[in-house]
Amino acid sequence: MDLIATIKTRRSIRQYKSEPPSNKDIEKILEAGRWAPSGLNNQPWRFMVIHSRRHLDGLAELTHYGKIIRQAPVAIAVFLDLEEVYNRDKDLMAIGACIQNMLLAAHALGLGTCWLGEILNRKKEVREYLRLPRNVELTALITLGYPRKGVIKSSRHPLKNLILKGISYA
Amino acid sequence: MDLIATIKTRRSIRQYKSEPPSNKDIEKILEAGRWAPSGLNNQPWRFMVIHSRRHLDGLAELTHYGKIIRQAPVAIAVFLDLEEVYNRDKDLMAIGACIQNMLLAAHALGLGTCWLGEILNRKKEVREYLRLPRNVELTALITLGYPRKGVIKSSRHPLKNLILKGISYA
Repeated sequence: MDLIATIKTRRSIRQYKSEPPSNKDIEKILEAGRWAPSGLNNQPWRFMVIHSRRHLDGLAELTHYGKIIRQAPVAIAVFLDLEEVYNRDKDLMAIGACIQNMLLAAHALGLGTCWLGEILNRKKEVREYLRLPRNVELTALITLGYPRKGVIKSSRHPLKNLILKGISYA
Repeated sequence: MDLIATIKTRRSIRQYKSEPPSNKDIEKILEAGRWAPSGLNNQPWRFMVIHSRRHLDGLAELTHYGKIIRQAPVAIAVFLDLEEVYNRDKDLMAIGACIQNMLLAAHALGLGTCWLGEILNRKKEVREYLRLPRNVELTALITLGYPRKGVIKSSRHPLKNLILKGISYA
C-alpha cells in the first residue's frame, strides 16, 4: 500500500481481536514514532507500553471511552518529557507528528489504533495509577490491536474549505 | 518505498532546486494533511499555499531561518482555526499529525520539506503581512521543493531511552 493510501485508509479502530500484536510489531511502531521531527530535534516524546489486562482495565476506569481500552490487548501511553520542553506549542505538535507516525505504522502492519484524548481530563489519576515520574505529562493513550471489523467510514471537510486565500498573487 | 522506510528516511531539506513542485503534487500533499486524525474529528487545520517569490521573500524577513524560505519555490503556511478549537493541547497535536502527513507525502513524492517554527515568534507580523483573517493562528510554515542535496544525516535517541517502565507487570 502506498503512503497516501495508508494515510487515507487509516481509521480509528474501537474493537479488537483478543490476539495481541507481536513485540516485534510494537517495536516497529515505536521506532516509527521515534523518527518524528521535532523543534531543535528535542524529541520530547516518551512511551509506556501497557500489556497487562489489569492495568489496561484500570486505565479504562479513568475515561468515558473505557470500553475501547477494555477491548484492546495493548496500549501505548505517550508522554511529553517536561525536562525537554522548549516551547509547549511546538512540543505538542512534535508529539502529534510522533503519534501520527505510530498510527500509520500500525495501519501499515495490519493493526488498528485509537488515539484517546478524553483521558487527559484525568491526568492526575493516571499519574498516580501508573506511578509516573514527575518529569512526564500524559499527552495521549493509543490502543492497539488487530481490528475486529472491516471497513469503517470517516469523512473530512473538502480541501477547498481548508485553503485560505488571504493574499493577492498580483 | 514502504511506509516505515519513508518515515525513517525523511529529513528536513534546507536547499532546493529552483524547479517548483507541480500543483498536482501540492494538492496530493494537502490531501494527505486533510486526512489526519483530530479530536472529535474537528479538523482544526487550515492552509495557505504561497507561490509568489515576493511573498516568500517577505516571509523570509520574519525569521532567523529566512535563508531556507528564500531558496524555496513554495511554502505551505499551516494555521489553527481558533473557531474550531475545543482543547488547545489536543488541537495542536492534531495539527502536528496533519503536518507530519504532509511531510511524509512530500517525501514519498520525491519532494523535500522543512518544518519551520521560529517564525512563530513573529506571528503578529505574519498576520499583517499575509492579511490573515482573525480566526486563524499561524502554527507552522513548511517550505517545499525538490531537494538540492543527497543524503542528509540525522539522529534520534535510542528507543530504550524513550520507554518508561513505571509500573510492574506482575
